[in-house]
Amino acid sequence: MSAWVLPDYIADVLPSEARRIEELRRGLLDTARSYGYELVIPPLFEHLESLLTGAGEELDLQTFKFVDQLSGKSLGLRADMTQQVARIDAHLLDRGGVSRLCYCGPVVHTRPDRPHATREPLQFGAEIYGYEGLEAEVESVQLALECLRGTRAPELSVDLADMRIVRSLLAGVPAGLQTLRQVHAALAAKDASELAQLTRNFPQSSKRGLAALLQLYGDIKVLDEAEAVLGSVAGVRAALADLRTIASTVHHARVTFDLADLRGYSYYSGLRFAVYASGVSDALVRGGRYDEVGAAFGRNRPAVGFSLDVRQLASVVALPALRAAIRAPWPQEEGLRQTIKALRQQGETVVCVLPGDAGRVDEFNCDRELAEVAGQWLVRAL
Amino acid sequence: MSAWVLPDYIADVLPSEARRIEELRRGLLDTARSYGYELVIPPLFEHLESLLTGAGEELDLQTFKFVDQLSGKSLGLRADMTQQVARIDAHLLDRGGVSRLCYCGPVVHTRPDRPHATREPLQFGAEIYGYEGLEAEVESVQLALECLRGTRAPELSVDLADMRIVRSLLAGVPAGLQTLRQVHAALAAKDASELAQLTRNFPQSSKRGLAALLQLYGDIKVLDEAEAVLGSVAGVRAALADLRTIASTVHHARVTFDLADLRGYSYYSGLRFAVYASGVSDALVRGGRYDEVGAAFGRNRPAVGFSLDVRQLASVVALPALRAAIRAPWPQEEGLRQTIKALRQQGETVVCVLPGDAGRVDEFNCDRELAEVAGQWLVRAL
Repeated sequence: MSAWVLPDYIADVLPSEARRIEELRRGLLDTARSYGYELVIPPLFEHLESLLTGAGEELDLQTFKFVDQLSGKSLGLRADMTQQVARIDAHLLDRGGVSRLCYCGPVVHTRPDRPHATREPLQFGAEIYGYEGLEAEVESVQLALECLRGTRAPELSVDLADMRIVRSLLAGVPAGLQTLRQVHAALAAKDASELAQLTRNFPQSSKRGLAALLQLYGDIKVLDEAEAVLGSVAGVRAALADLRTIASTVHHARVTFDLADLRGYSYYSGLRFAVYASGVSDALVRGGRYDEVGAAFGRNRPAVGFSLDVRQLASVVALPALRAAIRAPWPQEEGLRQTIKALRQQGETVVCVLPGDAGRVDEFNCDRELAEVAGQWLVRAL
Repeated sequence: MSAWVLPDYIADVLPSEARRIEELRRGLLDTARSYGYELVIPPLFEHLESLLTGAGEELDLQTFKFVDQLSGKSLGLRADMTQQVARIDAHLLDRGGVSRLCYCGPVVHTRPDRPHATREPLQFGAEIYGYEGLEAEVESVQLALECLRGTRAPELSVDLADMRIVRSLLAGVPAGLQTLRQVHAALAAKDASELAQLTRNFPQSSKRGLAALLQLYGDIKVLDEAEAVLGSVAGVRAALADLRTIASTVHHARVTFDLADLRGYSYYSGLRFAVYASGVSDALVRGGRYDEVGAAFGRNRPAVGFSLDVRQLASVVALPALRAAIRAPWPQEEGLRQTIKALRQQGETVVCVLPGDAGRVDEFNCDRELAEVAGQWLVRAL
């Protein structure tokens, strides 16, 4: 094996893409900051117990494990930062009121999340802790849209659902964890025959309700249909009313519903939302309410938030062309040195040609050069 | 063990410090960019062979290892990014001329580098590939100083030495790798008796030269002394001349020399430099020429560069206070929503008070509020 072959689904990011990712990263963090979200940086690895606490089997399988030579304990490379930020809110900040936190850093997966996905996404997210009201969901959806709009993403749409609907339909149903997981999968895949098979021994109301969910996707009319079909099930009406409220606060983006799609939202407990860009099949953002995540850290605070992969985003957004650089001779005298320094302080990129390397600097995109004209150093077009 | 206990030498970074780190990170990357250094993002983990190729035992011991479930091969978490960037230059860019590359990302160490160091430094670095002349060293030292100046670090000094001096003194000496390593350690520790013991069977000229190095630290006069004592050793005179040239290009910073201190520079092959800030005992920046790093990737290009730990830097620099935020009521009407949007676009942070949470938002530093005065939303001091 050559020393330069990278593991599968792992790649170097070269200059043009790296610059896009860096620009996106800054824009996302600045947008979150403008809403009052404070940046935190959780560690890349932790004790396995902390990382996987209450997180479910899926995250366990996604997490690389190794041993801490200092303690002999098992460590995990973080595969998701949501639990880490919940820990920070619960223990380190320990605030009485609302905390708004954001983060951006690499996470690592043992296997790619979806076909052709990287095993090293760059996760950005923003979370509100300590607030039970629907305004937290409203702000979170609004911030997610604002983050994507700032990146010139293609036309956006928001897809909404609520975990409480399926949960209500499954309340009291005699089924094990394995079956419930298969039911979720069949719902997500809209596989009616599989669902019928799995729910054949469920009570009539559950069986019919779950089957009905498969058709409950589309625009706002879905909520009327759902109310007609499922309105009598305890808890469903409240969830539908919340969905209607949140939908009414979304401006300048299409709103859709897919009440059966709960895939990838295992720790969510209420609203879940996804943001799609036209022409891109995977959701760019996933978020929602997950009130139970902090429990493992001794402080079960209400929580609403979302996250996205900056690398995935970089692959779908158009970025403005970078300003080209200025080429300068190798500075032998003070006048030229000062001119270069001043240009750099103005935000220009000035590339000094190393002596003897003149013909080769063209790999960096220079559209201007510094030239001496009548004893003055001037910038002129190339 | 509680779920919220982190491994030793690992910590969460909370908002005030995280913001400092983010500001520093951006400033460093922008300074490198203004010099024409292009950003690359190497992966967090790679095949162990690639990470450790030609890197020596020290890096091996610093590297966490685990298995790739997709291939069964051994992976390593990067403990240093220099080799990765050399690989990118050698293989991916494959340019004929000069490449200037920079990077910034977390690296992970099995053990802390020095007492109280984190095991997860945030490494920033900048490298020039493909240029043999001394101008590469000159630019690298200048960029390192410029990077630190941009961060308001305390008064800076540059310490210089050259690996070729010790190498010349050890040329042809009959000693194994283990002994040579001990010689380096004794030199770094300025331990004369240990050095005498280790070199007792070395040729006279080596023995005397190495002993003399222990005294060769201080200001520019060190170079004159070194020339008097070691000038007859092949190769030393050229190295001293280079040190003199580089020292002459450093402005607005003290220059010192410590010809015996080669600790932590195992892959360097020529000049090595360190930048210190007054009142801080550890070097903030280490760099130099390391022409042999790319060899393992099939392309042995000349290379000069430096790196630093952004977290260490954040602990020593003073940053300006952040602009405080504006508190706003939860926006129920369009006029307020538009006012908030405009303020955020101007770069302000506007924190909306979630209904019922009024008394508790003071944990975010707000010095102004949005208030309705005669039908207009106005910003006023708190």
